[in-house]
Amino acid sequence: MADQQARTGENSRPTEIPAIRWEEPPEGPVLVLLDQTRLPAEEVELVCTDASALVEAVRSLAVRGAPLLGIAGAYGVALAAARGFDVDEAANALAGARPTAVNLALGVRRAREAHRAEFARSGEEGSAAAAALAAARRLHAEDAAASVRMAEHGLALLGELLPGGGHRILTHCNTGALVSGGEGTAFAVALAAHRAGELRRLWVDETRPLLQGARLTAYEAARSGMAYTLLTDNAAGSLFASGEVDAVLIGADRIAADGSVANKVGSYPLAVLARYHHVPFIVVAPVTTVDLRTPDGASIEVEQRPGFEVTEITTPQGAVAGAGGGIPVAPLGTQAYNPAFDVTPPELVTAIVTEEGAVSPVTAEALAELCARSRQVTIS
Amino acid sequence: MADQQARTGENSRPTEIPAIRWEEPPEGPVLVLLDQTRLPAEEVELVCTDASALVEAVRSLAVRGAPLLGIAGAYGVALAAARGFDVDEAANALAGARPTAVNLALGVRRAREAHRAEFARSGEEGSAAAAALAAARRLHAEDAAASVRMAEHGLALLGELLPGGGHRILTHCNTGALVSGGEGTAFAVALAAHRAGELRRLWVDETRPLLQGARLTAYEAARSGMAYTLLTDNAAGSLFASGEVDAVLIGADRIAADGSVANKVGSYPLAVLARYHHVPFIVVAPVTTVDLRTPDGASIEVEQRPGFEVTEITTPQGAVAGAGGGIPVAPLGTQAYNPAFDVTPPELVTAIVTEEGAVSPVTAEALAELCARSRQVTIS
Repeated sequence: MADQQARTGENSRPTEIPAIRWEEPPEGPVLVLLDQTRLPAEEVELVCTDASALVEAVRSLAVRGAPLLGIAGAYGVALAAARGFDVDEAANALAGARPTAVNLALGVRRAREAHRAEFARSGEEGSAAAAALAAARRLHAEDAAASVRMAEHGLALLGELLPGGGHRILTHCNTGALVSGGEGTAFAVALAAHRAGELRRLWVDETRPLLQGARLTAYEAARSGMAYTLLTDNAAGSLFASGEVDAVLIGADRIAADGSVANKVGSYPLAVLARYHHVPFIVVAPVTTVDLRTPDGASIEVEQRPGFEVTEITTPQGAVAGAGGGIPVAPLGTQAYNPAFDVTPPELVTAIVTEEGAVSPVTAEALAELCARSRQVTIS
Repeated sequence: MADQQARTGENSRPTEIPAIRWEEPPEGPVLVLLDQTRLPAEEVELVCTDASALVEAVRSLAVRGAPLLGIAGAYGVALAAARGFDVDEAANALAGARPTAVNLALGVRRAREAHRAEFARSGEEGSAAAAALAAARRLHAEDAAASVRMAEHGLALLGELLPGGGHRILTHCNTGALVSGGEGTAFAVALAAHRAGELRRLWVDETRPLLQGARLTAYEAARSGMAYTLLTDNAAGSLFASGEVDAVLIGADRIAADGSVANKVGSYPLAVLARYHHVPFIVVAPVTTVDLRTPDGASIEVEQRPGFEVTEITTPQGAVAGAGGGIPVAPLGTQAYNPAFDVTPPELVTAIVTEEGAVSPVTAEALAELCARSRQVTIS
């Protein structure tokens, strides 16, 4: 079950709103999420008391973004365990809530395995639940640390590729603190450039159909004080043509072993435009996004989302009229093609930046080596 | 002044709604427009009794689309003349209402010159006004005839380029009966393919920010009974990548002497994607769209529209809240980059189809020859 707590009000804007947090009030542990579907109009928190509320929050995109989904999945398992629900059932439901994001399944697995191992050792539900929670907290902290390192590596790469400074960076979808235990992936690099005085402008794609760029990235950019400008996704072509984009920075939901990148729909057209205009196209994602068991782009399952996301406009205020709860903008009965992601082949990706460093050019060998190095670091 | 007449209702859907018509009720002549900002939710007519109401309708996109703007401009001059207003003042206001569309200024000039010539001959305001109206009606009829010929030439070209039939055509913005005295430009070609049993599917870009694809092209496609699917502009990349687009068909607002094509923002990225995927990119427009006095793409003035079109969603129902009358989707104070058009260079255009035939490859010489031929036909 999820409850809503509005935090809107004249003086209530906190300086830092965590996208996710674990709380333990007297009536039992809960997972508190910032409801991202309501931003930027209002800052509303969703309080999940069981895994099914979290599954619903994942499906509705109240919580979203590859790294954050991993953290949410791990906390979801911990929540099921702490509340005495069937942990395997909860884990299966959570892992399947969105098929493309590899981090979600990974986060779920990590907490579930910690739970299983501790239960096998101690035979106690309580300490198994504590182990699941500890695993979720570790993942959360690791993600925050990874964010810092991705920002460092990304900023260094920008410095190499664009020695003049004064970067004008185009980004798509939302990849900041709202998707991360820390400051995010691609957005964290832009933020680092901003803090270093090297960001001239962040161009923010609105990112149809759900407008994560307009609603969330613009919100994060405005809070950070950086110079940013919003545009419709299809206006990016004009920016490239007039030489106003120095680099594209995006996140990733899954990276196949060959370096193919699944990310929010609209990423691939940017990659093609970037190549046509000789502009670097840079993917920023934690190593956990690389899925070596997915050999190539064609093997990535791309989530198809409901057509009403396109045929109706769902606004943050939630004015309602259509079947999907939004305002119809197309004739009744109109079919829509609505893939959540697209796949960019490695030959169009200038570099993949992870917390372990950057891979450029993007090859299967370089990615495999990076993953092996990352595993050693994790084990050591 | 403009009045509104709603034509919504259970049994009131006419089989054919003209986008524009001249009427002469007892209280004086009027220009009646189908208000395209209200589609597909309601069919509302705007009744213009003077040129300034028409200028406002042009600016707000209640009437839009290159060929129709030319017709509207000519009728606007006729209206000013018939109502006894200053014809030169009306013509200047109309011609400047939208800077990129060359047809608007051309249509205005044609009616104004007919008015001037007749007044010089007869010295009578009444017969000069009648001459302006006759010029507007001639332009209207010529455009309808041009539409038929563009459709024939376009269908023949599709047959040559894609001999297999079963075309899957991607289109952007709105180019059908709502922009034309006839059945339109690019859409008229798709419609001809549909009638010939050769259209497998029309892929309809929603066309942000004003959603002319979702609102208007989907409306026209649904009425025609063709198989169509709506998509966000940024999902076109996925369609190309999966080989589901056989050709792109778009209209044009201005074509420079070198063959550079100004059309609705989002056209250029489709041209780059089409080239990357070896898919024909075909522009369909009347010869009047070619402006030989504009030497190249860089010389085309691109209209920048207000940022609120991007930062707010304006729905056909007109639910209101923000400064621009729409629902805010970005943080307050967000700047937006909102060019109405982009420019596609001739090397990315497979063919330009006009009522006088197709030009392919697109070169300055071939275009100049086409225009010379067209002028001969008009004079004879």
